Amino acid sequence: MQNISIRSFKLSLIATTIGAAIAMASSPVVAQQAMQPMKIERGTILTQPGVFGVFTMFKLRPDWNKVPAMERKGAAEEVKKLIEKHKDNVLVDLYLTRGLETNSDFFFRINAYDLAKAQTFMREFRSTTVGKNADVFETLVGVTKPLNYISKDKSPGLNAGLSSATYSGPAPRYVIVIPVKKNAEWWNMSPEDRLKEMEVHTAPTLAYLVNVKRKLYHSTGLDDTDFITYFETDDLTAFNNLMLSLAQVKENKFHVRWGSPTTLGTIHSPEDVIKALAD
Amino acid sequence: MQNISIRSFKLSLIATTIGAAIAMASSPVVAQQAMQPMKIERGTILTQPGVFGVFTMFKLRPDWNKVPAMERKGAAEEVKKLIEKHKDNVLVDLYLTRGLETNSDFFFRINAYDLAKAQTFMREFRSTTVGKNADVFETLVGVTKPLNYISKDKSPGLNAGLSSATYSGPAPRYVIVIPVKKNAEWWNMSPEDRLKEMEVHTAPTLAYLVNVKRKLYHSTGLDDTDFITYFETDDLTAFNNLMLSLAQVKENKFHVRWGSPTTLGTIHSPEDVIKALAD
Amino acid sequence: MQNISIRSFKLSLIATTIGAAIAMASSPVVAQQAMQPMKIERGTILTQPGVFGVFTMFKLRPDWNKVPAMERKGAAEEVKKLIEKHKDNVLVDLYLTRGLETNSDFFFRINAYDLAKAQTFMREFRSTTVGKNADVFETLVGVTKPLNYISKDKSPGLNAGLSSATYSGPAPRYVIVIPVKKNAEWWNMSPEDRLKEMEVHTAPTLAYLVNVKRKLYHSTGLDDTDFITYFETDDLTAFNNLMLSLAQVKENKFHVRWGSPTTLGTIHSPEDVIKALAD
Amino acid sequence: MQNISIRSFKLSLIATTIGAAIAMASSPVVAQQAMQPMKIERGTILTQPGVFGVFTMFKLRPDWNKVPAMERKGAAEEVKKLIEKHKDNVLVDLYLTRGLETNSDFFFRINAYDLAKAQTFMREFRSTTVGKNADVFETLVGVTKPLNYISKDKSPGLNAGLSSATYSGPAPRYVIVIPVKKNAEWWNMSPEDRLKEMEVHTAPTLAYLVNVKRKLYHSTGLDDTDFITYFETDDLTAFNNLMLSLAQVKENKFHVRWGSPTTLGTIHSPEDVIKALAD
Amino acid sequence: MQNISIRSFKLSLIATTIGAAIAMASSPVVAQQAMQPMKIERGTILTQPGVFGVFTMFKLRPDWNKVPAMERKGAAEEVKKLIEKHKDNVLVDLYLTRGLETNSDFFFRINAYDLAKAQTFMREFRSTTVGKNADVFETLVGVTKPLNYISKDKSPGLNAGLSSATYSGPAPRYVIVIPVKKNAEWWNMSPEDRLKEMEVHTAPTLAYLVNVKRKLYHSTGLDDTDFITYFETDDLTAFNNLMLSLAQVKENKFHVRWGSPTTLGTIHSPEDVIKALAD
Repeated sequence: MQNISIRSFKLSLIATTIGAAIAMASSPVVAQQAMQPMKIERGTILTQPGVFGVFTMFKLRPDWNKVPAMERKGAAEEVKKLIEKHKDNVLVDLYLTRGLETNSDFFFRINAYDLAKAQTFMREFRSTTVGKNADVFETLVGVTKPLNYISKDKSPGLNAGLSSATYSGPAPRYVIVIPVKKNAEWWNMSPEDRLKEMEVHTAPTLAYLVNVKRKLYHSTGLDDTDFITYFETDDLTAFNNLMLSLAQVKENKFHVRWGSPTTLGTIHSPEDVIKALAD
Repeated sequence: MQNISIRSFKLSLIATTIGAAIAMASSPVVAQQAMQPMKIERGTILTQPGVFGVFTMFKLRPDWNKVPAMERKGAAEEVKKLIEKHKDNVLVDLYLTRGLETNSDFFFRINAYDLAKAQTFMREFRSTTVGKNADVFETLVGVTKPLNYISKDKSPGLNAGLSSATYSGPAPRYVIVIPVKKNAEWWNMSPEDRLKEMEVHTAPTLAYLVNVKRKLYHSTGLDDTDFITYFETDDLTAFNNLMLSLAQVKENKFHVRWGSPTTLGTIHSPEDVIKALAD
Repeated sequence: MQNISIRSFKLSLIATTIGAAIAMASSPVVAQQAMQPMKIERGTILTQPGVFGVFTMFKLRPDWNKVPAMERKGAAEEVKKLIEKHKDNVLVDLYLTRGLETNSDFFFRINAYDLAKAQTFMREFRSTTVGKNADVFETLVGVTKPLNYISKDKSPGLNAGLSSATYSGPAPRYVIVIPVKKNAEWWNMSPEDRLKEMEVHTAPTLAYLVNVKRKLYHSTGLDDTDFITYFETDDLTAFNNLMLSLAQVKENKFHVRWGSPTTLGTIHSPEDVIKALAD
Repeated sequence: MQNISIRSFKLSLIATTIGAAIAMASSPVVAQQAMQPMKIERGTILTQPGVFGVFTMFKLRPDWNKVPAMERKGAAEEVKKLIEKHKDNVLVDLYLTRGLETNSDFFFRINAYDLAKAQTFMREFRSTTVGKNADVFETLVGVTKPLNYISKDKSPGLNAGLSSATYSGPAPRYVIVIPVKKNAEWWNMSPEDRLKEMEVHTAPTLAYLVNVKRKLYHSTGLDDTDFITYFETDDLTAFNNLMLSLAQVKENKFHVRWGSPTTLGTIHSPEDVIKALAD
Repeated sequence: MQNISIRSFKLSLIATTIGAAIAMASSPVVAQQAMQPMKIERGTILTQPGVFGVFTMFKLRPDWNKVPAMERKGAAEEVKKLIEKHKDNVLVDLYLTRGLETNSDFFFRINAYDLAKAQTFMREFRSTTVGKNADVFETLVGVTKPLNYISKDKSPGLNAGLSSATYSGPAPRYVIVIPVKKNAEWWNMSPEDRLKEMEVHTAPTLAYLVNVKRKLYHSTGLDDTDFITYFETDDLTAFNNLMLSLAQVKENKFHVRWGSPTTLGTIHSPEDVIKALAD
């Protein structure tokens, strides 16, 4: 997400925020898959519903150290070419976690209109030099959906709040990915009661729109989580305060998974990530 | 399940659906094992009770990359021959998960009238080139049984609903396998109360019969799960909505396992799965 | 247990059934260890209290495939000789799980009057060709004890029921091992209340005596489980129904472990198990 | 503990038994560390408070089989010399678990007045032939403390019972180590209420003093457990009954860890343990 | 922390103690990041809020034994040079756990004004001889914050108590790291109620200020823990008593993680830690 304008991110924010949980289409049987345009555009795909997100955390095996230096150095170019080859099918982001995480050294976020194409990209990555020397530690699959709770109709005040604030900090250097799963008691609440709790959840987060970017993917049934929450920030103390404010609302009592793993990394171009690991 | 007609799948659906939990034969000591016909026919075996299902998830070891390319390329043919050899004993489906899952690259679903024959097939697979280079991550064993709750006698309205709807979407490209285990409180409820909850569970699922296929295996005592639920779809957003509707009924409060792992893969011929992994 | 008469198994059943939980000797300090006869006799040792059971689940390492074929083929003979060498100390059963289980390929059940002798056998097995190429996945240690709850004195009706029924199905081809652990609430109930719940537990199981054989080992303090329940059957659907009937009684609410792992395998001679793995 | 007299063990028993949980020194800031005498004496160190216990469970790696037989055979002598070298700093016991446990083949119990010296011994062991070929599966660190609950002052009757009974069975052949952790509810009870429950816990154990020896280490904050309970016996059925009697008191309801792992092994001299593994 | 004066540590204690949980800045969107001075000074960085702490636990792989002795011996010098190279960016502490822990042999504590610089140091360490032969077992990331609960304003009495006591024991030889996570019920309590419980929590700890040093990092959202608590002591029995006193207050009932892992190690210079592992 390193070269998108704040404006396009804000649109994305409006479309799918942390305050938006499940979409209940009036007719559940109508496919909500977005029509794929001819080309993947970052500013567009990151703001649309019906887009699949695949997060894959990788850890280099010890054998990586035994790969000849020349081959290790060439790995960045190889990954760059793979991304180029698939650029009409998937949007690829790559992050560096080595030094900050136990179980991963880097991770991918793939956005795609067609999940099968994201799978093909990730499968081909496994045959690259770095892919052959890395183990998958975690895969999370989700899909974006239209705002449900804090929509213009249901919660106009908060919806306006979400729309009016804009990220205004320095370019984010940090990324955080946190899977979220809620218990049966949550899902058995009436939509009205869940809306009420999501409003309480959303209110204290407005103040952080200026220094924490966020995006939401829905995963129920696609993976062993209900949501994948994705954050970018340059101010980790602010982010810590945001998470504490989310811990302090009643909705938190319904979490059965919040993290586990929490993944914290730094934002670089894909080439720089691979180069940093080739040293 | 790639080449069966929608009609035969519908029969299967009627026989064993997600809404059917346990079969209580009037005389528990009468064996319910289906008589094995001379030959395995997909359209038949997938619709009968008394059929065993073995799901085995495999992950290729790093050494797979060191197997000579020629040998890797020949692996698909070898698996094809093994399936041919056992075709009178087992029905074999193979799915591709690499790129979408953490702990598996592909998985088998074996249907057999005699569990020992499914075991023999899976054991012989372990001696093939690809089998020798893969670790088992998960095995699930279950058996099909006649409808119990949403039967013609007990719940005629919903039973008719299940029978009348037909899958009408494009050929499914995705498969999802979700193990389900219920707690002691569920099993200690009276049959009438469980029937009532299964009716509440089943009602919202009718709308999804047109775009999600389903099949159920019973596992209590055979494995550390009560059920193996199997789905095919081409519309993952609809599937996500179906799972959310199942999360929102009271029956969900009795789950101690729902997924863990959820396995999401793509549907191909067995040869194509092995070829995709040999690249 | 492949060559014992139904009669001797029935005796074993009476002595130690799933309905018998803990033995409360009037004087707890009197050793209950059975006196070891000169020779191990299957029909005798399987019916006595004070006999130790050691269950050890093994998984072959990938290196097993690299052992020269000749050596692999000789492994069955080597294990046979080891069993012969220890035949006055331990009764050895070996089962095949490859193809049906994730974490094991085969498992041992050792019965011995002296636990140290079972340990010696298992230790020496580790130095055989197959033992050197296998990892232990699970070990369960227990001891047989006299009937406590459903005894002639305390529950004469059910005790008669247990005694009168006889396994009458075909020779069992399947074995299932399920560890069971109960919570502090269970153990804090009065003996009378536990007896009552065990009677409710036992009643629905009588009907399955004709097609499911069972044996019980006590493990509290010897291992992280309270009981090891062992079953043989040829009718897995009947076994599934038996387990469901046990799920439906109040006693199930006190389980903190029931399975985890459940181990399902097939019954063969020790030589045939090793041969099947040497292919 | 193979060559201590019953008398010295009994003293140890009085000082630190399973019925003694936490020591509340009147002045918590006064160090309770025992003064180290010039030499380690088994009969002394095992009866004093302020002594550290380090339990380390090891599992041999498959590579152990590839170590030349000569080197394997020499391993026992090497360990013997290491123990001799450290004999003024640590008391070393070594037990054999291969054949009875899943995750270990042998384990150490180190007693030391100075924990840093126990660390040094264990670190040097890691550089021996057998240490280099073994993985640590579990480490438990604790410290002995004076009796708290069942003391002469607080519970004179039970204290007298503990003091009067003496182990009178044959030399113990078996060792069992069980970590214990209690929940916040337990620790939030008043000291008087905890004393009452510990009295109920202790009463039924008196009968087993004749055939089960016991020793207690305190671990809160030093490890992820509150206590390490250590037992020696020759009568495992009696031990099983002792554990069942402890399961049946109210105090058991406050356990969050009782075992996990339970470790069961046999008692030999250190040399014999290593020799048994070198076969 | 081996060469700081007691005085500077005391300042650190006042700023961030175990009794201080979350900081609620009046304006959450104002970055609280400390301005980095030209140089890292131990006495300064350990007393400031806005400083990141990265704890990384490492375990040597078996292959470490096969690294030529010369290369192993040179490893300490290599690590020393790396620390020197980064001395303007990070403060590095290294501790020895081999012999006391299961899953680690040594661990780092990195303090940095800029988390990205801590990441760079840890990444470069992975390319050293010892780093290439070690696996990461655990990584904990946190940030220091101003005192919240036991501040001069809110709890003047206890605050004075914290300020007045000084560590007066011998130089600490032991380090303990314990992650802490609290449940939703805790975070949903009012600030006043949490303050009250933190006062009850803090009172009994005052007595231990003389023999246990402590420092606190905040991790909510940065990792799967809420706090990292860090301790140094020379009196492990006193530390055990301190932890017991913390177990006995109501606040303990809100813990969902307290340890897991608890890490216990010894304090040495970085070179001595690596040398001890090179033997």
